Amino acid sequence: MSDNSFGRLLRVTTFGESHGPAIGCVIDGCPPGIAIAAVDFRADLDRRATGKSRHTSQRHEADEVEILSGVYEGRTTGAPVGLLVRNTDARSKDYSKIAEQFRPGHADYTYWQKYGIRDPRGGGRSSARETTMRVAAAVIAKRWLFDKYGITVQGHVSQIAGIRPRGFDAAAIEGNPFFWPDASQVAELEAFMDALRKSGDSVGARVDVVAHNVPPGWGEPIYGKLDGDLAAAMMSINAVKGVEIGAGFASIGQKGSEHRDLMSPAGFASNHAGGIVGGISSGQDVTCSVAFKPTSSLRLPGDTVDVNGQPVEVITTGRHDPCVGLRAPPICEAMMALVLMDHALRHRAQCGDVGPVSPLVPGSVP
Amino acid sequence: MSDNSFGRLLRVTTFGESHGPAIGCVIDGCPPGIAIAAVDFRADLDRRATGKSRHTSQRHEADEVEILSGVYEGRTTGAPVGLLVRNTDARSKDYSKIAEQFRPGHADYTYWQKYGIRDPRGGGRSSARETTMRVAAAVIAKRWLFDKYGITVQGHVSQIAGIRPRGFDAAAIEGNPFFWPDASQVAELEAFMDALRKSGDSVGARVDVVAHNVPPGWGEPIYGKLDGDLAAAMMSINAVKGVEIGAGFASIGQKGSEHRDLMSPAGFASNHAGGIVGGISSGQDVTCSVAFKPTSSLRLPGDTVDVNGQPVEVITTGRHDPCVGLRAPPICEAMMALVLMDHALRHRAQCGDVGPVSPLVPGSVP
Amino acid sequence: MSDNSFGRLLRVTTFGESHGPAIGCVIDGCPPGIAIAAVDFRADLDRRATGKSRHTSQRHEADEVEILSGVYEGRTTGAPVGLLVRNTDARSKDYSKIAEQFRPGHADYTYWQKYGIRDPRGGGRSSARETTMRVAAAVIAKRWLFDKYGITVQGHVSQIAGIRPRGFDAAAIEGNPFFWPDASQVAELEAFMDALRKSGDSVGARVDVVAHNVPPGWGEPIYGKLDGDLAAAMMSINAVKGVEIGAGFASIGQKGSEHRDLMSPAGFASNHAGGIVGGISSGQDVTCSVAFKPTSSLRLPGDTVDVNGQPVEVITTGRHDPCVGLRAPPICEAMMALVLMDHALRHRAQCGDVGPVSPLVPGSVP
Amino acid sequence: MSDNSFGRLLRVTTFGESHGPAIGCVIDGCPPGIAIAAVDFRADLDRRATGKSRHTSQRHEADEVEILSGVYEGRTTGAPVGLLVRNTDARSKDYSKIAEQFRPGHADYTYWQKYGIRDPRGGGRSSARETTMRVAAAVIAKRWLFDKYGITVQGHVSQIAGIRPRGFDAAAIEGNPFFWPDASQVAELEAFMDALRKSGDSVGARVDVVAHNVPPGWGEPIYGKLDGDLAAAMMSINAVKGVEIGAGFASIGQKGSEHRDLMSPAGFASNHAGGIVGGISSGQDVTCSVAFKPTSSLRLPGDTVDVNGQPVEVITTGRHDPCVGLRAPPICEAMMALVLMDHALRHRAQCGDVGPVSPLVPGSVP
Repeated sequence: MSDNSFGRLLRVTTFGESHGPAIGCVIDGCPPGIAIAAVDFRADLDRRATGKSRHTSQRHEADEVEILSGVYEGRTTGAPVGLLVRNTDARSKDYSKIAEQFRPGHADYTYWQKYGIRDPRGGGRSSARETTMRVAAAVIAKRWLFDKYGITVQGHVSQIAGIRPRGFDAAAIEGNPFFWPDASQVAELEAFMDALRKSGDSVGARVDVVAHNVPPGWGEPIYGKLDGDLAAAMMSINAVKGVEIGAGFASIGQKGSEHRDLMSPAGFASNHAGGIVGGISSGQDVTCSVAFKPTSSLRLPGDTVDVNGQPVEVITTGRHDPCVGLRAPPICEAMMALVLMDHALRHRAQCGDVGPVSPLVPGSVP
Repeated sequence: MSDNSFGRLLRVTTFGESHGPAIGCVIDGCPPGIAIAAVDFRADLDRRATGKSRHTSQRHEADEVEILSGVYEGRTTGAPVGLLVRNTDARSKDYSKIAEQFRPGHADYTYWQKYGIRDPRGGGRSSARETTMRVAAAVIAKRWLFDKYGITVQGHVSQIAGIRPRGFDAAAIEGNPFFWPDASQVAELEAFMDALRKSGDSVGARVDVVAHNVPPGWGEPIYGKLDGDLAAAMMSINAVKGVEIGAGFASIGQKGSEHRDLMSPAGFASNHAGGIVGGISSGQDVTCSVAFKPTSSLRLPGDTVDVNGQPVEVITTGRHDPCVGLRAPPICEAMMALVLMDHALRHRAQCGDVGPVSPLVPGSVP
Repeated sequence: MSDNSFGRLLRVTTFGESHGPAIGCVIDGCPPGIAIAAVDFRADLDRRATGKSRHTSQRHEADEVEILSGVYEGRTTGAPVGLLVRNTDARSKDYSKIAEQFRPGHADYTYWQKYGIRDPRGGGRSSARETTMRVAAAVIAKRWLFDKYGITVQGHVSQIAGIRPRGFDAAAIEGNPFFWPDASQVAELEAFMDALRKSGDSVGARVDVVAHNVPPGWGEPIYGKLDGDLAAAMMSINAVKGVEIGAGFASIGQKGSEHRDLMSPAGFASNHAGGIVGGISSGQDVTCSVAFKPTSSLRLPGDTVDVNGQPVEVITTGRHDPCVGLRAPPICEAMMALVLMDHALRHRAQCGDVGPVSPLVPGSVP
Repeated sequence: MSDNSFGRLLRVTTFGESHGPAIGCVIDGCPPGIAIAAVDFRADLDRRATGKSRHTSQRHEADEVEILSGVYEGRTTGAPVGLLVRNTDARSKDYSKIAEQFRPGHADYTYWQKYGIRDPRGGGRSSARETTMRVAAAVIAKRWLFDKYGITVQGHVSQIAGIRPRGFDAAAIEGNPFFWPDASQVAELEAFMDALRKSGDSVGARVDVVAHNVPPGWGEPIYGKLDGDLAAAMMSINAVKGVEIGAGFASIGQKGSEHRDLMSPAGFASNHAGGIVGGISSGQDVTCSVAFKPTSSLRLPGDTVDVNGQPVEVITTGRHDPCVGLRAPPICEAMMALVLMDHALRHRAQCGDVGPVSPLVPGSVP
């Protein structure tokens, strides 16, 4: 078991290394009849891609998706959907140095300790390149969720280092290279990121992701909680160090009388729960906040050891993101969409007898 | 699938409701030869139990564990270990009112939306009573981890509402009813909790849990990440709204040059990673921080709806915890121990050929 | 992992040893709302029980089922159903001899090789006593399958040693101690079994099991084939050495023009497929045939080795079945019912969008 | 869930249709360090391929395996191994007729009933072309099993229609187009198959597969039995209708005193168990026998219905195997090798503490 699969009933298996010939995935458990074509992957893969602005890694990948199976005459058949993306900009270079020493804070060391062997080319399997396939797989999930339930999933960056949005305008998010919800701060962020890049250092970021129109009743109460699965999903993304649902850590400081979301026939009075109570969706927006650490591949020298345990100083060259969180919203959206679709299928498996859910409390916060 | 099992290779399945005849669990995948007896469950179950101080629910359960299977002449045989605990203090009372209306912030509503039927007695399956069996199962995991690797797992409360420890003394933790690491603050906490209880309200808390002596190499890189599994494990505990590994959300504000843990033959210079990099343990302490929301069962009235969707005002009577996080350290320890043992088994399944790990970098922070 | 769970979405976990305090199971994934009470387990547990005639083991167990969880006011709630059966006739005796030597053909030796430790009391975990819980769990599955789809599952013995039924009368099966479909042969079988019992030897048997009214479309095409899961389910029963679906091994000698089941608007012309084609049910009866070996616990001496590898002669005393297949029809029915219900849930998870199936070809053979 | 994955710890996921652009698989859980190159897949893929003699389908596929991931400098890294095989001889033709009517005995009808949509090109996902990837995946398993334990797995055809081998010469098996163990019968088989092919009909076959040098202790006692997993594995192969372990159905007619395999310090006196007792390997050869039905794609007309439920007569043209069992030995070997490697990993996960197994009874039959 090395667990490169995700989900119970909608099950995505990914493979491929950063600088290998290709990356790919198999999406198993898709309901039949979903309309999908290679062109449909373009938008979200572009949103995730490097090289779209000077603030991300300058690797330029074509990210052309080939549908290998599971689709016939433009619709899923119920058979596994195989997707393939060739790596086209994996620069050939001498890996001997990077193979010999471990970047501090990077998975180099832990992979080597685990397996006794390591693919050093571009980070190998530990590269965020793997997340391409998560985004691709979720294109199908997003479509199904929207077509069937009207569900939309939207992520944005809500903090870069110490900078937070002053306002929130959903329409602004896709209009700048930072998925930032306040257009008035973009110039400030450009300047900040330019200075950071020149310094050779990196910073962390926070990403918020929300799903609208999730019906009540999805999730399972104990170890298959909707929030538990979301937490695992987000924590499985490279560089993530924390996950919150709803009020998250702020709920520590809340009174119960403040935190609980009062209900009336007009709807919920608030959404501190983040749309999940007892592991099951309540009908409100499902909200999640994710912490991305600063990337560890820096141009600043740092102490480390080599494969013989000898002390060395390491400097990382090559193409890297100074703030990996900047490209993360589509990835967080992808993981949320995959979790939601998986739970939609799980719910109807067990509770298909219960009949369609008619919520007593409208989901939206007035 | 309703997913009342936890773990891949060490697999714990729990069952039982708060006011049903019994709760229990089946622990499957235990290595043979582990010494275990009914008496061994006593200490941790007592640490978790209600009614030990006036600051928790006043339900008094005997929590007597009966070993039903899987142990012969005091040792595990490799067969599934069945454990049973009879409920002895589930008060018989009239549930008709609680069955008709939904406490805001409680799983009452979401269970009802999901299943169309609900066991209202003491919260039914959604009660924290279920966590008794997690703690019991983890007694075996803790023993195996310690006997084989010297691993210890220790949790403490690191925040109650806005109060944080001023100092840290590991020896103090078990000496007060709050798992609090600074004895000098206990009187203050007593007063705070007394006032809270009288007010009928509740507060949140933070729990930190750390595992010492975890060898490098445990965890799986993509969807079976050690931190991903820890996040799911912690989020599966009742009332949890957030999980951090290592520096967690604070890493957003860190520079990469600060966050990365430099390495030398003398050891790591810091532990912002929380002992996990790329989903795999590094040999440092594995650290996790968990946010518990304030409980929703309050004596303060609140707006809600009944099963017919009509507006009503609800007041929760009965025995409840004003701060459920106060009893949570043994539960968080249990989940971490179960995750670690599961990953120990998973690691040797795949990487048993690699041979024993000899870390190049000592794990402890100097 | 020691894999004491069965099924994907309807998941049964069993525990307990032959002579331990109790056996039990947890049934996870039950749809809510199924009516069930302790008394409902009586009929099928009696059909499976020993001691009902002189032709089976003379162990007399009460087989009283206690429902520990998952049922409220007579209906399943969606929470895991815990069932417990105390062992009441596990005779206390000296196990020192049986613990020291291995019965040829018995799991004594392989358990000892695997685990290095063994519970020798009554066969421990390897005893057919474990199948009690399969039968109990399937009571719920049978009820759901019948109430929702009209499915019935019926098993009978179709061969004992070299004796086969001369005729087939479904009404006769439950009227004799052999689940035999031809009442005219019962006296002959009584005499055969009496002589066998006196000889101290044992014989094998064949059990056929059929499910009526299974809708088309259940099963998954590759590794989750309905017939693949049935094969695993039947082979998991103690003493089973072979499984056939439909024509089974006889299909080797058939021409394709004979084997294929022709279709017309009036129905299928034959059922050599056993109701499963390409891993998916066709709408015809699902038929399965299972081979039970002769039990290995004999009163006839046999060569073996002891735990030190020394040669010894072993004679098995105690209460044993001379033909374990005689009690197997309810167990085979149970496994088929559990597989079918699991696949019903799996089918609606993935294909709930497809809508209700309206078969083009009636299932029954004219 | 549509369950295109196989195995618990060594997990193979396949995708692809008969006439789609490619087939492929992901092998997850491979131990690191296994030497593997594209050329290593050649031998077994050739053994399985069509078009090698006039007695199989005349489809000629290149079956070139591209390793997409998981291998670095000729060795597995522990990351998932992605394999891809382009379909090169999928003839473009008009599928309109085959899409409109259902071949009797073929998965056409059941797929259509399940999914409401069907890829009719060459049988789509239900084609035996999928087994190519099983054979490819098992090349790695066979290598690991042999290098680590000296295990070899060998299959042969043991019956075609009514013809059985007169003698058994292991050396003969690979020297004829029938995997037949008696060279003296090859001419007879050639004549039989030529006549069959001309008739437009098909026949069934039996395949035996045996694994040598399997250590005792592999397998899990209840639902993860080694024989249970083998039964599912074999039954998952296209056209299989029956599976036997050891004496199989013949054990019905045996006395217990005959069936049980006596043990002595010199070894086992027989192997009726097929090397598995109580679900766990005994150290003897693991033996399995598999029944393949006659293929349903015949040039002989047959009654069926079309997608509107109307009666039609169908004749299958195109390239088909008159006896699909003739190519099945490498596929059966593959499934056995995958099951064995999976269980080797599962065994050391749980029982790695027990230490290396030293059998008391030599495995070979004297």
